[in-house]
Amino acid sequence: MLESQDQKKLDELFSSMQEANGCFLGYPFAKGFDYEQLWRFMSLTGNNLGDPFEPGTYRVNSHAFECDVIDFFARLFRAPSCEVWGYVTNGGTEGNIYGLYLARELYPDAVAYFSRDTHYSVSKGVRLLGLEHSVVRSQSNGEMDYDDLAQRATRSRTRPAVVVANIGTTMKEGKDDTLKIRAVLHDVGISAIYIHSDAALCGPYAPLINPKPAFDFADGADSITLSGHKFLGAPMPCGVVLSHKLHVQRVMRKIDYIGSSDTTLSGSRNAYTPIMLWYAIRSLGIEGIKQIFQQCERLAAYTADELNVRGVRAWRNPNALTVVLPPVEDSIKTKWQIATQDISHLVITPGTTKQQTDALIEAITNRNR
Amino acid sequence: MLESQDQKKLDELFSSMQEANGCFLGYPFAKGFDYEQLWRFMSLTGNNLGDPFEPGTYRVNSHAFECDVIDFFARLFRAPSCEVWGYVTNGGTEGNIYGLYLARELYPDAVAYFSRDTHYSVSKGVRLLGLEHSVVRSQSNGEMDYDDLAQRATRSRTRPAVVVANIGTTMKEGKDDTLKIRAVLHDVGISAIYIHSDAALCGPYAPLINPKPAFDFADGADSITLSGHKFLGAPMPCGVVLSHKLHVQRVMRKIDYIGSSDTTLSGSRNAYTPIMLWYAIRSLGIEGIKQIFQQCERLAAYTADELNVRGVRAWRNPNALTVVLPPVEDSIKTKWQIATQDISHLVITPGTTKQQTDALIEAITNRNR
Repeated sequence: MLESQDQKKLDELFSSMQEANGCFLGYPFAKGFDYEQLWRFMSLTGNNLGDPFEPGTYRVNSHAFECDVIDFFARLFRAPSCEVWGYVTNGGTEGNIYGLYLARELYPDAVAYFSRDTHYSVSKGVRLLGLEHSVVRSQSNGEMDYDDLAQRATRSRTRPAVVVANIGTTMKEGKDDTLKIRAVLHDVGISAIYIHSDAALCGPYAPLINPKPAFDFADGADSITLSGHKFLGAPMPCGVVLSHKLHVQRVMRKIDYIGSSDTTLSGSRNAYTPIMLWYAIRSLGIEGIKQIFQQCERLAAYTADELNVRGVRAWRNPNALTVVLPPVEDSIKTKWQIATQDISHLVITPGTTKQQTDALIEAITNRNR
Repeated sequence: MLESQDQKKLDELFSSMQEANGCFLGYPFAKGFDYEQLWRFMSLTGNNLGDPFEPGTYRVNSHAFECDVIDFFARLFRAPSCEVWGYVTNGGTEGNIYGLYLARELYPDAVAYFSRDTHYSVSKGVRLLGLEHSVVRSQSNGEMDYDDLAQRATRSRTRPAVVVANIGTTMKEGKDDTLKIRAVLHDVGISAIYIHSDAALCGPYAPLINPKPAFDFADGADSITLSGHKFLGAPMPCGVVLSHKLHVQRVMRKIDYIGSSDTTLSGSRNAYTPIMLWYAIRSLGIEGIKQIFQQCERLAAYTADELNVRGVRAWRNPNALTVVLPPVEDSIKTKWQIATQDISHLVITPGTTKQQTDALIEAITNRNR
């Protein structure tokens, strides 16, 4: 039992988080989820420790549902049948570090390449793993500059290449092309290549858009990660990482203590997030994901158009949910929680309403007058 | 909306997890928690991204509560005032890897020492970080063999030493002594020392027992981690890691995208688990933690005695909640989810009942007849 002043503090936290939840537009996190019928699982001591595909000693787990989630995304990402393994992570950072870890175990003397528009978790990952790296220039749309990649790779042509491809980038939702990346590296004379696709935001819908971006297993990726709390939506960060089994076997160890293999980064893992992701994909299905994407995309198009009509130079990449615009003022950045570097952006995620974007457009354009 | 066969599958998962939750005794996870009044937070897109002690652009966070949790444990672990920093992790593995990461950034050419009874996350961490390591023998009670540490450290006396101290070990709850570890290393002639205390299970109660084990900041630890889902209890893995600010500053980077510093391993982080940990420590207070520990300890003592009376050679370390016993049969291991290596163990956590331990004692001793 809380003392009354603590109860008040807790209630105030809820109110302030709820208020902030109603007006964020600058991060690619879905708002429109309803997992209330899953809350009952919060009464259990869930833990998905060990490998999701192996029985383990601890049984208060949701491994079976985790496997369903992995299988769903393996198919969506055109994985060769039965040759891909994966698990539900605590978010995009874990997925990126895991992909880089598998890459380093395969090619310890590799150089890692990634564009300057890449999420900050990747530079943290290469530092953690002691991977030498080279930051590649980006095109103005956020996509990797393949000529610069070629030049950089030429300088280290005798060494394996690990490339992180963004699907899409954090600020502009630019999408790197894994087929082009492989072609560039082959032309340079590098055949030892590992590509990790960071599909944090676009993973669930990238396979469904036309033209389909080149990023999946059939397009030459060795590992792919996506975030669960971004497009699909979740009350806490989570994600999925998938990789060829051959890569994973290099880091696998049998652990008596858990009666399973230690193949993941986290060891003890959230049993609740796999159930949420399962619930999301089973409720929506591929068609539902596509429909929700299209609704978001229409609202993103409308928002960019409306800003342009009002004299704000907003733009977006083809099929992107991210609307890029000049840096917004601090008061707007604070209220609407607008991620801002040299540019600002809005991300139209599931649950974002026209009322919200209209209010923001109004705020931005009134300031600009 | 789920289709009816999926709804059935979900309900069956809940039933089977609930059944398993009612009869696990082999993992150190509390069962007796009630966070139902926090479930409402699951409707929000919470994310504690960035540094808990800095304001960031995204406001649907529980940073203020996270800071309260860090301050509570900083005081409990006798941190020098204002010189310790921390954050809420996704569990013990993240805390251990984080501590080892800080250690490696301070001493890149260190040798890492840890006993063979150490949790498997530590050997994963040194591999991930490329830290050379030496596995130290253990005493029969699970505690590090300090003579073996001295011999191993002597062989690398010109290099810094990173030591992971267990408070307590995974299988036997043996407690390594950080004062002895420092003394041994000093005697060997090593002055560049970093000690990480892995207090996953015992962290919340170790400061309250008599004699107090030597493991905290005043006892020479550089970083300390504890798990939230173990003694305090949580429906998902979580934990706390604390370290001297000087160590953390070495890995800190300013990230415009989040309007904060990237000081943590995870980046995007769970906003829900800090609220749970806050709720637990504010409801219980130090006195409540002490009382619950004493209840558990009495039940552990009773269980060990009762097994001995019935001819099973069970034992436990002083003040331990872990009862060590010969390996149990597979059917018992499966039903009661008993972690088993060359030995088995039960862990009497909050929420464990005498009915449960009696049922297990009955199962074990009936088999032994």
